[in-house]
Amino acid sequence: MPHVITKILADDRRFELPDGAGSDAVHSDPQYGYAVTQLITEDKNQSGTGIAYTLGGGTHLVQSAIELLSEPLVGQEIEALMSDFGTVQRAMAEHHQIRWLGPHKGVTHLALASITNACFDLWAKARGVPLWKLLLDLSPEALTRLIDFSYLDEVLTADEAVSILKEKAATRSQREHILKEGYPGYDTSVGWFAYSDERIMENARHAIDLGFTAMKLKVGSPQPERDVRRVKKIREAVGDDVRIMVDANQAWSLPKALEVCQQLASMQPYWVEEPTQPDDILAHQTIARAIAPVPVAVGEAVSNRVMWKNFLQAGAVGVVQADCTRLAGISEYLAVSLLATKYPVKVIPHVGDMGQIHHHLVFFNHIALGHEKLFLEYIPHLREHFMHPAIVKDGAYQLPQEPGCSTDLLPRGKH
Amino acid sequence: MPHVITKILADDRRFELPDGAGSDAVHSDPQYGYAVTQLITEDKNQSGTGIAYTLGGGTHLVQSAIELLSEPLVGQEIEALMSDFGTVQRAMAEHHQIRWLGPHKGVTHLALASITNACFDLWAKARGVPLWKLLLDLSPEALTRLIDFSYLDEVLTADEAVSILKEKAATRSQREHILKEGYPGYDTSVGWFAYSDERIMENARHAIDLGFTAMKLKVGSPQPERDVRRVKKIREAVGDDVRIMVDANQAWSLPKALEVCQQLASMQPYWVEEPTQPDDILAHQTIARAIAPVPVAVGEAVSNRVMWKNFLQAGAVGVVQADCTRLAGISEYLAVSLLATKYPVKVIPHVGDMGQIHHHLVFFNHIALGHEKLFLEYIPHLREHFMHPAIVKDGAYQLPQEPGCSTDLLPRGKH
Repeated sequence: MPHVITKILADDRRFELPDGAGSDAVHSDPQYGYAVTQLITEDKNQSGTGIAYTLGGGTHLVQSAIELLSEPLVGQEIEALMSDFGTVQRAMAEHHQIRWLGPHKGVTHLALASITNACFDLWAKARGVPLWKLLLDLSPEALTRLIDFSYLDEVLTADEAVSILKEKAATRSQREHILKEGYPGYDTSVGWFAYSDERIMENARHAIDLGFTAMKLKVGSPQPERDVRRVKKIREAVGDDVRIMVDANQAWSLPKALEVCQQLASMQPYWVEEPTQPDDILAHQTIARAIAPVPVAVGEAVSNRVMWKNFLQAGAVGVVQADCTRLAGISEYLAVSLLATKYPVKVIPHVGDMGQIHHHLVFFNHIALGHEKLFLEYIPHLREHFMHPAIVKDGAYQLPQEPGCSTDLLPRGKH
Repeated sequence: MPHVITKILADDRRFELPDGAGSDAVHSDPQYGYAVTQLITEDKNQSGTGIAYTLGGGTHLVQSAIELLSEPLVGQEIEALMSDFGTVQRAMAEHHQIRWLGPHKGVTHLALASITNACFDLWAKARGVPLWKLLLDLSPEALTRLIDFSYLDEVLTADEAVSILKEKAATRSQREHILKEGYPGYDTSVGWFAYSDERIMENARHAIDLGFTAMKLKVGSPQPERDVRRVKKIREAVGDDVRIMVDANQAWSLPKALEVCQQLASMQPYWVEEPTQPDDILAHQTIARAIAPVPVAVGEAVSNRVMWKNFLQAGAVGVVQADCTRLAGISEYLAVSLLATKYPVKVIPHVGDMGQIHHHLVFFNHIALGHEKLFLEYIPHLREHFMHPAIVKDGAYQLPQEPGCSTDLLPRGKH
C-alpha cells in the first residue's frame, strides 16, 4: 500500500532536566529540546516522526523553518521520495531564496535534519523494519541515492561511495554477530559541569557498576586547576583501564586550549572534545598536532558535509562526532560517515537524539562500512519521553526491533 | 538627553525586483528582503533602524529571531550600551541555549546583524552624526570596545587592534580628502544571469556613461561557453581599461571551478567571486593558488569572524567581501576589517544593504584603517524604498550627511 504524505505538522518540544544535568562550560542551564516533524499519511497508523536537537531556547524558530521547507513534500509517496532522496534533499537545501539563510547551517539546516529524519522514519515504518535493517538491506546504489554529494567531488563521488560499500560488503558477514552482542555505550552523564567533585566520583563508580568502560567529564573551567583536579578524581575512582574523555564545549581560545590540553594530556584522556569554536578548522588542526596521539573529537556543532570535508582534509579531527539531528539528518550523516571511511577517521556520533536514531546507525556503520566497534554516547535524561527508549544492558545498546527510527515521542504530559 | 530603548519591533520587508534583476547561477528568482529591527525610545523622533539582508523567502524566521534575541536590550540607554558593545553582543551571540542554533551563523546570526545595526543607527542619531563621522571620532579604545574579539586571540587581540588604529591615525589627514571626492562605485546590475547578451552589452555601455569604471557579470552557467562568451562581449563593449569581475555565486564544484576559471583567466577578470560553497575554505585556497594573480573574492555568505580568520590564514581569499548585513552587524564588520588590515587583504564589501551602511564604512576603512581606495558595489534596485538613498554621482558614492546609518525604510506603500 502506497504511503502518501497528506499533511505535515511541526512541533516545539522542550524538556526540563534534573538539577545540573546537561550543564557544561558554555551551556550553563540547558533544556533539551526537539523541533519535531510529523509526516501524516492517509493511514492513521503510519506517520513519520523526525527530530532535530536543540538546547531549548529558539526551538520555535526551527519549528517555523520546518513548516516553510517541508511544503514540497505534501502529496509525495514515500517510496518514490526515497528512491532519489539525495536530489529531494538538495532541492530543499538549495531553495533559491531560503538558502541565503544558511546555506547549509543554522536554523534552516536543523529544520532539514528534522524533515529528513521524518522521511526515513516513515519509510522504515512503511517497510515494517527498523532503520538499521532498512539501511543494511539497500543496494550500494540505492543507499548512495539517499545522499547529496554536491561540493564533495574532489574527495568523494557517488561512484566512489558505491565502490566503498561494495568492497566492505565482501566481509560484512564477519561483522554481523554484533547484532546479537549489542553495541557498547559510554556514559556522558557522569561529569556534568555543575556537579560537585563528590558527585562525579560517585557517578563514575556507578557507571562502572552498570557495565560502562568509558565515560566523559565536562571541562573548560575558567580555572584549569578545576579541570585537572576533576580528571584526577575520576581516574582515582575508576582506575587506569577505563577510558575518560574530556569535553570543553568550545570554551577555550586557541592559546588557552594549547595551555590546558598540555596539562590534561598527562592524565591520558581518550580524547579532547570541542576545544574551541567549531568553525575554526585551522585552530583544531593546530590543537590536533599539539596533543597527538590524543585525538581531537568534534562534531556536535559542525554544520554540514563541506565543513566535515575540510576538517578531514586538514587532519583537524581524530573522532568524528557527526550527529544526524544537527547535520541534514540521516542522509548527511551517511555522507559524513562515508567521507570518514575514506580517510579513515573514527566516527563516534554525538547523540542529540539521546542515541535513539544513532544506535541504529552505529550498527549500520560497523557492518556496512566496516567501522571499528567502539562505543556510542549514552545520555539517559529523556528516556521517559520516547515511546521506545533505547535499551542499554550491561553497558551496551541492544538492537532495536520496532519499525522506524525509534524517534516517536510520547504526547505531552504522557510520560 | 539620554536615549532609553523602550520597545523593540521586528519586521519582515520583501521587495519585488524588476524582471531578471538579481538573478544569478544559483538564485534564479530572488526577491530582496530585510529583517528589520526598530529600536523605539521615549523620544518619538529618535528610533534606531537595523537591517539584515535576505533573498525574500524565510525573512520571517529572522524577524522571529530578532524578537527572541533583542529582549535584553529593552530598558537600556544607548550611550551606556555602546560604551562596551563588544560584551553586549557577545552575550547575545553566546546565549547559553540559543547559541546551539548556530553558533554564529544562519538565522540567529542574521538577527544579530539586524539588532546590532539598529544599535549603531540609534547611537549615531542620538549623537546627531552620520555613522562614518561617529566611527571616525571614536578613540581607538572606544572603537575596539565595540567588537567581540573572542576566538581571534592568536591572530588579533583588542590591544593589537588599538595599536593598528593608532599607527594608521598618524597618516589619517592625508586620506581625508576622500570625504570631498566621494568613493568610487562599481556596477553589479550590468550582468544579471537572466539578462540576454544584448542587454548586458547595452548595460555595460550605459554604466560607462554613468561614470563607472568597473562592473560585474554573473557566471556559473551549466555551459561554461556561455560564461566565456558573455565576458568577451562585455570586454568588447567597454574596452580593455574597464575592470570586469565575474561572479559564480557558488555554482561550481572544485574541479569545475578550476576548469572554468582557467578559461576565464585569459579574459583578465579583476576577480573571480564565490567560485564554490562558501564554507569550503580549502577549496577556495586551491582555487586561489590556481588562478593567481587573479584574486578570489568571497564574503556574502561567510558567516562570522572565525570563518574569516581561517580564510585569511589559509590565503584562500584575495578580496574580502564582508557584509555587515550578513555578519553580526557593523561590529563584526569592523572585526573583519581589522583582521584584513593585518594580513593585509583588500576589503570591498558586498552590499546586502544596497550600499546604504557600507558607503559610510568604506570612508571609515580608508581613513581610519588606511585601506586602499578601491570601489564599492552599487545596486540601484531598492533606492526608492530608503528614506535617504545613497547618492552616486559620476560613478562615485557621495558622503552621506544625515545622522545615522542611512537604513531607514519608507513605510509600506510609500515609495
